[in-house]
Amino acid sequence: MSDNNLVISVDAMGGDNSPRVVVEGIARAHKNNPDIKFLLFGDEAKVSEEMKRFPNLKKFCTLVHTSERVRNEDKPSQVIRNKNTSMYMAIDAVRQGQAQAVVSAGNTGALMAISKMILKTIQKIHRPAICTLIPHKKGRCVMLDLGANTECSAINLAEFAIIGNILAKHSLGIESPRVALMNIGAEEMKGREEIHQAAKIIKASHLDLNFIGYIEPHQIGEGYADVIVADGFSGNIALKTMEGTARLVTGLMKNSIKNSLLAKLGLPFLFPALWSLKRTMDPRKYNGGMFVGLNGLSVKSHGGTDAFGFSHALDNAAKLVRQNFVQTIRDEVENIDLDELSQDILYDVY
Amino acid sequence: MSDNNLVISVDAMGGDNSPRVVVEGIARAHKNNPDIKFLLFGDEAKVSEEMKRFPNLKKFCTLVHTSERVRNEDKPSQVIRNKNTSMYMAIDAVRQGQAQAVVSAGNTGALMAISKMILKTIQKIHRPAICTLIPHKKGRCVMLDLGANTECSAINLAEFAIIGNILAKHSLGIESPRVALMNIGAEEMKGREEIHQAAKIIKASHLDLNFIGYIEPHQIGEGYADVIVADGFSGNIALKTMEGTARLVTGLMKNSIKNSLLAKLGLPFLFPALWSLKRTMDPRKYNGGMFVGLNGLSVKSHGGTDAFGFSHALDNAAKLVRQNFVQTIRDEVENIDLDELSQDILYDVY
Repeated sequence: MSDNNLVISVDAMGGDNSPRVVVEGIARAHKNNPDIKFLLFGDEAKVSEEMKRFPNLKKFCTLVHTSERVRNEDKPSQVIRNKNTSMYMAIDAVRQGQAQAVVSAGNTGALMAISKMILKTIQKIHRPAICTLIPHKKGRCVMLDLGANTECSAINLAEFAIIGNILAKHSLGIESPRVALMNIGAEEMKGREEIHQAAKIIKASHLDLNFIGYIEPHQIGEGYADVIVADGFSGNIALKTMEGTARLVTGLMKNSIKNSLLAKLGLPFLFPALWSLKRTMDPRKYNGGMFVGLNGLSVKSHGGTDAFGFSHALDNAAKLVRQNFVQTIRDEVENIDLDELSQDILYDVY
Repeated sequence: MSDNNLVISVDAMGGDNSPRVVVEGIARAHKNNPDIKFLLFGDEAKVSEEMKRFPNLKKFCTLVHTSERVRNEDKPSQVIRNKNTSMYMAIDAVRQGQAQAVVSAGNTGALMAISKMILKTIQKIHRPAICTLIPHKKGRCVMLDLGANTECSAINLAEFAIIGNILAKHSLGIESPRVALMNIGAEEMKGREEIHQAAKIIKASHLDLNFIGYIEPHQIGEGYADVIVADGFSGNIALKTMEGTARLVTGLMKNSIKNSLLAKLGLPFLFPALWSLKRTMDPRKYNGGMFVGLNGLSVKSHGGTDAFGFSHALDNAAKLVRQNFVQTIRDEVENIDLDELSQDILYDVY
């Protein structure tokens, strides 16, 4: 697709500091992606007010007024019935072909529910997942599911392995990504039954996956795997624990330095090194959870991010559109029937 | 109990570098606990050889020869049938009253299975849990279950809350510990059903717990709660993710410094501050996972720890014996019948 036709639909009212952060994020993303057009949905008065700060914006942004918005406390079952929210309309623009991807910093559960209802799950994929790239000491890896599915069957996990594999190939450029299931031990008997079953299904499937078995969470940072597959509950636990621990370690370090006069003297020397570390670990650069397994591209930005973080979510969405990500997944899963396979395997076991 | 009678039973053959690390760990622990006696179980030739390095050791150590040991790959179902292993005999010494606690760095699943079979679960507690203290920015908190129970019911979780509360009171000296259930969102509807049910049971139980609701993993490091309750799978995922992320962040920091000449120049100034950080975060100081909910004290040391780490596990065990931990739990749960309560609550819901 030529970038001249690339349109990203944006929920201007999603996130903690919308529409300010959203509008500023678009202005930033434009610098890296001068050919992309943006279709904004939100309260006309509020969004236009923010847009005044960037007079250039009008050239590549179209604003559609919406009178309502999804709030953080809204339940998915409610939001799917209200077609007038900025989130609903932004997603619907993808279904209608007005945009190739949608980005929102709003309520995750709502975004997934509406995306699923409007864009529909790809044939042969049972459940969409939330996916992101996380840093390890040698680079980055793909991790999914991060919270779309609190409970997952073996089939769901096997499907996530397929999707993650495609994403690692295309987004990270890894020829034969090492795919692993997250578990609490390396031994076959450890952990939950659905994980054991998923391993059997993947191994028996001739999927041509470079499946390396189980990975324990303390190994993720070592870079042992390129794709980490988990159910949405455990994946979310791991992701949030990473975030909290990184903050704890750097916070304790700051305190140690603050309490030492000697360290304060040495700090200017270390500044460039600490700055480079900060850049590597900056969570804003990993902003943009992709909803994968849908007939359309839906990207969730962290609700509390700033304009720099939001622009990364937009960059992310643009990259996936250019890689024709949705069609690639559709093509690759067309010939796979994991359901049939899993029945054979369950029959073997019991 | 006078410390003159305090005996700790030790599996001298457990862990990656046994019996060397175990024997040296005992020598170290003796310095802080001169009145404790140790009852060692292991291969006589190998253990005696190591003990020669510390001639003083004979005065407070008794060695019992065992011909067999539990290996890392042994299944719990096998090890509970072999009464001749160093692990089995070390645990059995607690049942026989020869020791008040047992410490092993061996196979976790085996240690839990044998401990459960020999020591039995405390009446009214359905399942024992693995518990440890973890650091946060203001101090430490209790976390359980860390891997004993891959799946947990609402009742199990509520019982862990009770046990964790007692541990935080006694081990951390907190008068009214803030107890939280680990979950992937603060809202009531988020996460797994058993967590919602556990919250209802705890709230309705008049347990006199300072229950503060759900905690998300990125909040743990902030010190929002004193007791973190999770099922064994999620708890283990969170614990191992903390370990891996702390290592990743410090590793990346080292690399940043190594690659900067300027930083190398400044490093001597920072040394005391970094050293103090290292001391705070040292995982060896948190070594010693306690098995709680049993009629006897069983402590698991990390299999790969060194003598310093192993001595901390022994210190930990001694501290719990002195606090009369097992009897305290027995007393506190005597008047609680969560089963009955949960039936009421389930009746309410459906």
